[in-house]
Amino acid sequence: MAPSAQSLPTSVSDEKYANVKWEELGFGFCRTDNMYVAKCKHGESFQEGKIVPYADIQISPCSAVLNYGQGLYEGLKAYRTEDGRIVLFRPDQNALRLQSGANRLCMPYPTVDQFVSAVKQVVLANKKWIPPPGRGTLYIRPILFGSGPILGSLPVPEYTFTVFACPVGRYHKDNAGLNLKIEDKFRRAFPSGTGGVKSITNYSPVWITLAEAKAKGFSDVLFLDAATGKNVEELFASNVFIVKVEERVVPVEDLLDAEEVFCTGTAAIVTTIASVTFKEKKTEFKTGDKTLAAKLFATLTDIHMGRVEDKKGWIVELTDATKPGLKL
Amino acid sequence: MAPSAQSLPTSVSDEKYANVKWEELGFGFCRTDNMYVAKCKHGESFQEGKIVPYADIQISPCSAVLNYGQGLYEGLKAYRTEDGRIVLFRPDQNALRLQSGANRLCMPYPTVDQFVSAVKQVVLANKKWIPPPGRGTLYIRPILFGSGPILGSLPVPEYTFTVFACPVGRYHKDNAGLNLKIEDKFRRAFPSGTGGVKSITNYSPVWITLAEAKAKGFSDVLFLDAATGKNVEELFASNVFIVKVEERVVPVEDLLDAEEVFCTGTAAIVTTIASVTFKEKKTEFKTGDKTLAAKLFATLTDIHMGRVEDKKGWIVELTDATKPGLKL
Ligand SMILES: Cc1ncc(COP(=O)(O)O)c(C=O)c1O
Ligand SMILES: Cc1ncc(COP(=O)(O)O)c(C=O)c1O
Repeated sequence: MAPSAQSLPTSVSDEKYANVKWEELGFGFCRTDNMYVAKCKHGESFQEGKIVPYADIQISPCSAVLNYGQGLYEGLKAYRTEDGRIVLFRPDQNALRLQSGANRLCMPYPTVDQFVSAVKQVVLANKKWIPPPGRGTLYIRPILFGSGPILGSLPVPEYTFTVFACPVGRYHKDNAGLNLKIEDKFRRAFPSGTGGVKSITNYSPVWITLAEAKAKGFSDVLFLDAATGKNVEELFASNVFIVKVEERVVPVEDLLDAEEVFCTGTAAIVTTIASVTFKEKKTEFKTGDKTLAAKLFATLTDIHMGRVEDKKGWIVELTDATKPGLKL
Repeated sequence: MAPSAQSLPTSVSDEKYANVKWEELGFGFCRTDNMYVAKCKHGESFQEGKIVPYADIQISPCSAVLNYGQGLYEGLKAYRTEDGRIVLFRPDQNALRLQSGANRLCMPYPTVDQFVSAVKQVVLANKKWIPPPGRGTLYIRPILFGSGPILGSLPVPEYTFTVFACPVGRYHKDNAGLNLKIEDKFRRAFPSGTGGVKSITNYSPVWITLAEAKAKGFSDVLFLDAATGKNVEELFASNVFIVKVEERVVPVEDLLDAEEVFCTGTAAIVTTIASVTFKEKKTEFKTGDKTLAAKLFATLTDIHMGRVEDKKGWIVELTDATKPGLKL
């Protein structure tokens, strides 16, 4: 069922901005006006949810997510282009990743259309929180979790799908490139585990090493695979790339040999890695304007900002016209 | 600070039971009257919390637990002895395990005294939910989680420690012994992971295989270690024992060779395992009154029910006298 236009609260003026010091925007939590909530009972499927004022979630103390970690998150962004449009980047891909995670964690999930519609509704309902072009983006956080009480045995009686959003600036603060620590004790993902999906269970277990690395001045941690402890996996919340290496298993030695290294992610965008430290030894890589990372960052941002044409059909535009008729 | 006696809601009559069909009690969620809540800001320590009416928890959509799985649980029981006392079994050990988990997941934690006091308060505030002797027990569920909002980087601004309780009967329904499936695809705990602590991230990732095994008629799943895939670890929520084997690494072959096998846990108590199935092959073990498991079950239950003397200092008694003066 399509939501009715009246259910979308609008800002005082669509063109007005929220009262935010955009130049000081970092990557952190910031409360906005509205969020989306849909619930689903065990054995049923998700129906269209609704936009509600941003507020705390009410959840059973005995809920599956609080007691057994049954939850997934997604992350995508809404961009304000230079010519005043509001766009998303490949939101269907986030929907599909959520679905595969839901299968892994035994949860029902919204359809791709429901997911994308929910994201669009949240963006429109928080329009004044989208930073001006070049000043940041609106980070959108869909979460899907077991909200019903469970003790002992399955099934979980109820699931919740919520989408909220916060304006964000840069995720990594190091302008001159990241200084990474290669983690040689803690592993993160293992065969048959949940490393292939965006399960909440993949994050808190490795905060311990991220916090330690940050305390020592590193920008982020690079994890190695649990099975061999020899191959490169990813950073805390971004993927890693080595220039001139195809998509394959990458032993640490290949990484240390690389000319240029960068990471990517919705939050990280494309960020140069200036160094990695492995067992106390620091190896440096190419940084600056001439890197492939700098070029990729520029091209991707140009697409997001509407400065270059999207030839792949990756950009999804939101217009006020999408609002009333729906089929968002 | 000690809570005041007045803050403890009491049942209409302490000796009256809640309106429960005790003979039909299974192991599932059941709403009771009161719960305990304490909160703690980042950088501070847990202060004494309070007993409040049982209700949904209000939590930020952007909380650490919902988005990154930062949570731990504990499980212990309150027993009504045959001579009318109410007792706990080694609650300090649950407090210590919670503390080690909190260190692993970068959370502050209650002291052992705060933990035990919270558990006692919850039991007393839900006294009429403790089943009559022999009919079941009051299962107590402490949870500790990151309740404050976090996006991007640590620290988490707020943590919550909550304790609630439900009356429970048998955890495993198979009276004649469990029929286990040895899981040969999904692993659960891996070196440097969170298998050594009671993290919520250890549970939802393996529901998929538990659900599959149950659908095939098995009672529970037995996991093998992720590092080698050869050694026995534990069931979904209980430990496994093989008669006449010391505490050591146990290859699957030793298990299949055993005369008797059983599992233990707060929920499982001591439960005979009748068979395990490994790669389609079923191996059976000794069951019935003559097993060591039956003897251990009887002795442990006799201690819980006050029928035999506790010579180890494992039993902690709650009396109404503990209520007003506190120092619970
Ligand atoms: C563990 C992990 N790897 C990689 C990524 C990058 O994924 P995406 O490009 O979809 O943001 C993320 C993003 O949050 C992440 O958490
Ligand atoms: C994974 C797991 N192993 C073992 C146990 C048994 O621990 P305990 O004897 O403290 O209940 C539990 C209890 O919940 C558990 O969840």
